[in-house]
Amino acid sequence: MTRHLLDLADLSVEEWDALTTLACDVRDHIDRYAHVCDGRIMATLFYEPSTRTQMSFQTAMLRLGGRLIGFDDPNSSSVAKGESLKDTIRVVSGYADLIVMRHPLAGSAKAASLYSRVPVINAGDGGHLHPTQTLTDLVTLRLEKGRFDGMTVGLCGDLKHGRTVHSLIKTLSRFPTNSFVLISTPYLRIPAYVRAILDRSGCAYREVDRLDDAIDTLDVLYMTRIQRERFSSIEEYHRQQGVYVLDAAKMDRAKPDLIVMHPLPRVDEIAVEVDDDPRAKYFEQTEYGLYARMALIMTMLQHPEKRLPDTLPVGSLHRCGNPHCITGREPYVPRVFRREGDTLVCDYCDEQTLRP
Amino acid sequence: MTRHLLDLADLSVEEWDALTTLACDVRDHIDRYAHVCDGRIMATLFYEPSTRTQMSFQTAMLRLGGRLIGFDDPNSSSVAKGESLKDTIRVVSGYADLIVMRHPLAGSAKAASLYSRVPVINAGDGGHLHPTQTLTDLVTLRLEKGRFDGMTVGLCGDLKHGRTVHSLIKTLSRFPTNSFVLISTPYLRIPAYVRAILDRSGCAYREVDRLDDAIDTLDVLYMTRIQRERFSSIEEYHRQQGVYVLDAAKMDRAKPDLIVMHPLPRVDEIAVEVDDDPRAKYFEQTEYGLYARMALIMTMLQHPEKRLPDTLPVGSLHRCGNPHCITGREPYVPRVFRREGDTLVCDYCDEQTLRP
Amino acid sequence: MTRHLLDLADLSVEEWDALTTLACDVRDHIDRYAHVCDGRIMATLFYEPSTRTQMSFQTAMLRLGGRLIGFDDPNSSSVAKGESLKDTIRVVSGYADLIVMRHPLAGSAKAASLYSRVPVINAGDGGHLHPTQTLTDLVTLRLEKGRFDGMTVGLCGDLKHGRTVHSLIKTLSRFPTNSFVLISTPYLRIPAYVRAILDRSGCAYREVDRLDDAIDTLDVLYMTRIQRERFSSIEEYHRQQGVYVLDAAKMDRAKPDLIVMHPLPRVDEIAVEVDDDPRAKYFEQTEYGLYARMALIMTMLQHPEKRLPDTLPVGSLHRCGNPHCITGREPYVPRVFRREGDTLVCDYCDEQTLRP
Repeated sequence: MTRHLLDLADLSVEEWDALTTLACDVRDHIDRYAHVCDGRIMATLFYEPSTRTQMSFQTAMLRLGGRLIGFDDPNSSSVAKGESLKDTIRVVSGYADLIVMRHPLAGSAKAASLYSRVPVINAGDGGHLHPTQTLTDLVTLRLEKGRFDGMTVGLCGDLKHGRTVHSLIKTLSRFPTNSFVLISTPYLRIPAYVRAILDRSGCAYREVDRLDDAIDTLDVLYMTRIQRERFSSIEEYHRQQGVYVLDAAKMDRAKPDLIVMHPLPRVDEIAVEVDDDPRAKYFEQTEYGLYARMALIMTMLQHPEKRLPDTLPVGSLHRCGNPHCITGREPYVPRVFRREGDTLVCDYCDEQTLRP
Repeated sequence: MTRHLLDLADLSVEEWDALTTLACDVRDHIDRYAHVCDGRIMATLFYEPSTRTQMSFQTAMLRLGGRLIGFDDPNSSSVAKGESLKDTIRVVSGYADLIVMRHPLAGSAKAASLYSRVPVINAGDGGHLHPTQTLTDLVTLRLEKGRFDGMTVGLCGDLKHGRTVHSLIKTLSRFPTNSFVLISTPYLRIPAYVRAILDRSGCAYREVDRLDDAIDTLDVLYMTRIQRERFSSIEEYHRQQGVYVLDAAKMDRAKPDLIVMHPLPRVDEIAVEVDDDPRAKYFEQTEYGLYARMALIMTMLQHPEKRLPDTLPVGSLHRCGNPHCITGREPYVPRVFRREGDTLVCDYCDEQTLRP
Repeated sequence: MTRHLLDLADLSVEEWDALTTLACDVRDHIDRYAHVCDGRIMATLFYEPSTRTQMSFQTAMLRLGGRLIGFDDPNSSSVAKGESLKDTIRVVSGYADLIVMRHPLAGSAKAASLYSRVPVINAGDGGHLHPTQTLTDLVTLRLEKGRFDGMTVGLCGDLKHGRTVHSLIKTLSRFPTNSFVLISTPYLRIPAYVRAILDRSGCAYREVDRLDDAIDTLDVLYMTRIQRERFSSIEEYHRQQGVYVLDAAKMDRAKPDLIVMHPLPRVDEIAVEVDDDPRAKYFEQTEYGLYARMALIMTMLQHPEKRLPDTLPVGSLHRCGNPHCITGREPYVPRVFRREGDTLVCDYCDEQTLRP
């Protein structure tokens, strides 16, 4: 397997299968894994706070017998005294055996991997990727539906900005027998690059305005939050709000074997009354996320030698136009692009740039 | 024993005896307990910071071989993104084997226990309860006085707002041979509900204005801080201040077998010169708090199966009138009251409400 | 060895030798040390944040099998509620087996050692001392140069305020065959007390204005940062800036066996292009700091009995005039001075006071 986990799309379907199989075994026999990482240290470098994700990774490492260092508030740390990402990673990869990193800029985990002597796991790089959430979703599908294909999957909420939604569509569209129902306001539809992936995939999909228009057809419903400020006005918010809230009345119309997922934390997009419905699986999902991360950590630590990459890629003279790309912040990172048709795509943040 | 520790009053005297006996054995043979909690994880959820209490719990779990997750600054965490207590507890009780929780609202630990798959320990819920401090005080009495009864116990300082004082009175008044001397300004006397407990208990008690009026009669002196803003004016503060400060001159008049306790941190209510007096036991007391918490953690983890409560209580239509009660913040929590004479008492915060 | 590590100058050359020998063995056989501190707890009390130093100490203890408690943000802790250093140390030394402390005031670690039942390691006391950085530097010299003497050592940057520079000069000047080249602006030369040490040592030294004036003569180059605000004006900053930046052009003129050190974090005083030069040892240096701290922790924990110092020193009526000395903040700390010629020198902060 790849040395780092930056993007779940870097893995083959066989590798997903191996990881999710291992996660299922961890769930059934967690005590067998209690000493797999004895004596190993994982660093959690959280350049922006995310208690939930950090706690899940930390629990995973502790349940494997390992130990933890790291920070979750870079503002109060020397990291904020202008230190480069490269220097932090060079130093921390001298201390730890594995780095889990969350950062507000896209491509930051990939940039970090260039300077790390140990594996890097991307725990979220801005609005770009969050591969361990998607791995969690795959483990949930495997455990609750027994398959990754042949399903009608509804995704509801803010489909424009939700990276977990994009990543799940990207992943499940590798299986052409899946079909998708995209439930959102017209303004919050999926972005063009996700639409392009769907079009290429051969998967059927349709876009609807109301959860009620789709609920009875779904095998899986993936709920996400719409932030109030995403609506065009506060009046629009109050008019539309209930349309995207899952409640008992809507559940009454759903299939008996539907499963409801949510990456959490939720605010009010799922009514509390739904929690007791056996089809609600979002709390189980967070627990499966623990097993997914345990499987991932074990897999990443299988080859323990510490070493820097032999060579860095040669940097381009082009600049990425994305203001949230790590290459704009850290000038020494070699800029790398790939050609897709007429455009250049930044290898860090996956934004398209016009070809010069 | 009860599955959770929310209020020390939920325990029988026999259970106190078992816990304090275990704590004493831990003190004498701490190495025998070094692996009791191997492989177990405790979450410390501190919704308000309390370095001292958190460090004591963390040390206790580490000395038992266990491991730790948690947070101490909810403002910088997803917990602050509007997540309900229920959701946080559902998720964390999927990760950890035990939850230690501190929260600014009364009844929060009890509310959390409704949604937890693992035991919950109340590490302070606002001004309401702080049972592990009182357990610490019991262990101190056992180790330093050898008994819980037949003592003259002085409590000095802010007796109106001090929850550790209320809890200790409530606890020691179960033994009718104890008597109390309550030392404070008229404004900072014990509240009515504590007085009612004392009256029902059969214990003798008297209220005095000056520490000097009582010091020579005491077997135990429990000191607490009076915050400057509790005095009616700054002049009053300066006039009264010394009256409630324990110094070497006052100690000269005390019994040779007095013990001085304090929940710490102190500010200036005990002069530094008293620290070297062998009757000063407040630093020992914090160490005994470690053994008390080790005993408690072991006891709570004896039955390791994880499960949600089978049923929730049925909620009342009444509302608790206490603005600092958790039921005002978390609307899904079923509201439960008990009748005491003509009034309803909230089961979460123990505030009385007029019966409707 | 001394029970605490407050100042590296308290140790004999033989003790340095033992510590650095042990650190080298840790580097070569780290797995042999994985259980040396099983069951032991180290408290890291960081009264000012320093992610780098804290992470290095924490990793060191975890690699030895030990466990951690502590804080890194006293503002959000009960420590900030006016608690004295004495009380915090009395309490924490009841919980932990070893205390690592960083504090903004000079002499704070020494003051703490008076009230601690366990060894105290000074992890930086304001601008005063930072002995484990110097121990790290010694381990680096041993591993990269094989000796502590007979070297021409360049120190570049802010030599006036840099405590790591002062401490390294103090240490290496014990070996009279070393010579020093001090590279800084006239305003940022070494302070008088360091100059006095050099004068007494018999070591040759010279002061130069430009890194280019010395680079070709050096065996060791110790780089530090000059903060922008240390220059007399912003124009002066822009004119002088490059003079103290190490880049590939300057490295071309250096000896083939030069080593470049830096306490990190760096800002821009070493160009990124130098990182790939095999003579750049600053990232190795941080890794050696881990081995140095592991050696130190093991050595400090060899005598595990917990006890308070038998007696405190008798306090003087004199007051230290240094506004950054711990004795000004904590009034109960006995004030102690030593005579040096006509002056009194504070035993905590080492500032000279006119003899009364």
